[in-house]
Amino acid sequence: MAPILLNSMATVTDLSQSEFIIHEPPLVTDQVHVMNPHLETMKEDILYHFNLGTNTHNLPEMFGDIKFVCVGGSANRMKSFAQFIHQELALSGNIDDITDICEGTDRYSMYKVGPILSISHGMGVPSISIMLHELIKLLHHAHCHNVVLFRIGTSGGVGLAPGTVVVTDKAVDCFFRPQFDQVVLGKVIIRSTELDEGIFKELLQCSSELDNCPTVIGNTMCTHDFYEGQGRLDGALCSFTTEDKMEYLRKAYNTGVRNIEMESTVFAALCRACGLKAAVVCVTLLNRFDGDQISTPHDVLVEYQQRPQVLVAHLIKKRLGLII
Amino acid sequence: MAPILLNSMATVTDLSQSEFIIHEPPLVTDQVHVMNPHLETMKEDILYHFNLGTNTHNLPEMFGDIKFVCVGGSANRMKSFAQFIHQELALSGNIDDITDICEGTDRYSMYKVGPILSISHGMGVPSISIMLHELIKLLHHAHCHNVVLFRIGTSGGVGLAPGTVVVTDKAVDCFFRPQFDQVVLGKVIIRSTELDEGIFKELLQCSSELDNCPTVIGNTMCTHDFYEGQGRLDGALCSFTTEDKMEYLRKAYNTGVRNIEMESTVFAALCRACGLKAAVVCVTLLNRFDGDQISTPHDVLVEYQQRPQVLVAHLIKKRLGLII
Repeated sequence: MAPILLNSMATVTDLSQSEFIIHEPPLVTDQVHVMNPHLETMKEDILYHFNLGTNTHNLPEMFGDIKFVCVGGSANRMKSFAQFIHQELALSGNIDDITDICEGTDRYSMYKVGPILSISHGMGVPSISIMLHELIKLLHHAHCHNVVLFRIGTSGGVGLAPGTVVVTDKAVDCFFRPQFDQVVLGKVIIRSTELDEGIFKELLQCSSELDNCPTVIGNTMCTHDFYEGQGRLDGALCSFTTEDKMEYLRKAYNTGVRNIEMESTVFAALCRACGLKAAVVCVTLLNRFDGDQISTPHDVLVEYQQRPQVLVAHLIKKRLGLII
Repeated sequence: MAPILLNSMATVTDLSQSEFIIHEPPLVTDQVHVMNPHLETMKEDILYHFNLGTNTHNLPEMFGDIKFVCVGGSANRMKSFAQFIHQELALSGNIDDITDICEGTDRYSMYKVGPILSISHGMGVPSISIMLHELIKLLHHAHCHNVVLFRIGTSGGVGLAPGTVVVTDKAVDCFFRPQFDQVVLGKVIIRSTELDEGIFKELLQCSSELDNCPTVIGNTMCTHDFYEGQGRLDGALCSFTTEDKMEYLRKAYNTGVRNIEMESTVFAALCRACGLKAAVVCVTLLNRFDGDQISTPHDVLVEYQQRPQVLVAHLIKKRLGLII
């Protein structure tokens, strides 16, 4: 059956579980769109997992100048990124004074450095999804304009040398479809995961201006599981053969997939649905055609993980006019 | 079309995306089953997200005596639980000396207190799933026997007073089905989420021996999203009415759902598939019929969050013969 096309504010009614609705996103504009009429009626909005709220914090004052939001899985890595970008922008003050804005909770960590917000999101679609809902509401409450989001993460490579940075063209699901399926009140809603072509081309240009930052544009497959879901042979459960795994990876490669991670589809879908420009920039820690375990020495992994940070920092510096 | 029933080691071949396989679990025994023949051929197993490995750590020496594993979303809460159970068991040593075994990584935190392991798993099915794969392999490598797992967490209540502890009868998905759908190499595998009846009855008995620990047995709905996926009206996106939300919650209640969280289905399914006895014990922070935002004062929330810990600690003490 053909999907039903509705605009994003349509009410979902009378559809059985096997039917689908495709949400059409708003056009990308300079505003952060919160696509929820109920929010206007609320006297207070508690961003529970950030430990922030509209009545307890002056969000426009705290966040009104934000232009770039960088998110990644690990809290330590996002703290390092905040310290790194502070140095790159040559800001005054000591990097040890950059504190976690969400320190009252351990769900996420958040650091602000000038017009840049650095936030951790944990692992997997549900974890980043909670963070994104609250981040988008935060940017809305703070009246932010012209914000660009970057996911800077790690991934498994598909046919690439370890250490290669993949800038995502399309985020695809485990069936190689460029879509994110969201269940709302027991009905499946399909959202587009298309990312902004302008930004990923800008990132590719930036990579050509850097040493030691091999970068490609490719599709990124987002799975809900690290072991069976990514065809790994080394989980607690595995009921398939090495050849089955290789065939799946070859299929993925042939559809344009160059890396596999666990957050890109919902990141792309939510940003698009709320009119935010966004890019996914992940380094590959291994080539999945060669194995499943991450056995690369720690210091090499640390250097790999800095590459997306260096690339995105370069773009930010260019946009801020710090590099001509 | 009727599901195809296969045993858990069957190879998945030649099934289209719309077809299903149901995995039959092994019988629960005293051994920890790793259902993966490939593991035997590996010279080393790196448990990447724990920063542990079979060649770098003596896992039988470190973990061979483990009998109870308690897991929960928040790293801080699982550290508190480790300190609490240390006091409850009246063990020697200072609680401040209990250190994070996974301190080389910030993906998860892990604390060992006598025969008890306390581990954080982050939020959502993918995050807990990675942890469980590595935990089950850890217990296998350490030759553990007769291990019981408990998830002690927080949840939204459905028709219950806030602060009620729900011991899960069936973990159900957002369509109220007692199953977990795992995509493996692009095929959907359905796993049972049935939990051990003996343990949840034992927990109910324990609750009757405690003050201030109101406890019920009910179904727990596991969703992949906190906002739209749980029918909340306060996310960045919401395309449904208050009445649509209430109707969905009423349907959930009528099928036996008493609370909603984000990890129980995969927890139940993976434990069952690997022959591990397991229980899910979550306190409700609010009654979703009354609202969506968690606005309860911090100190009250802290007390609520201790209830599953107190209940599970009571069962552990009884099993260890510390309470007759």
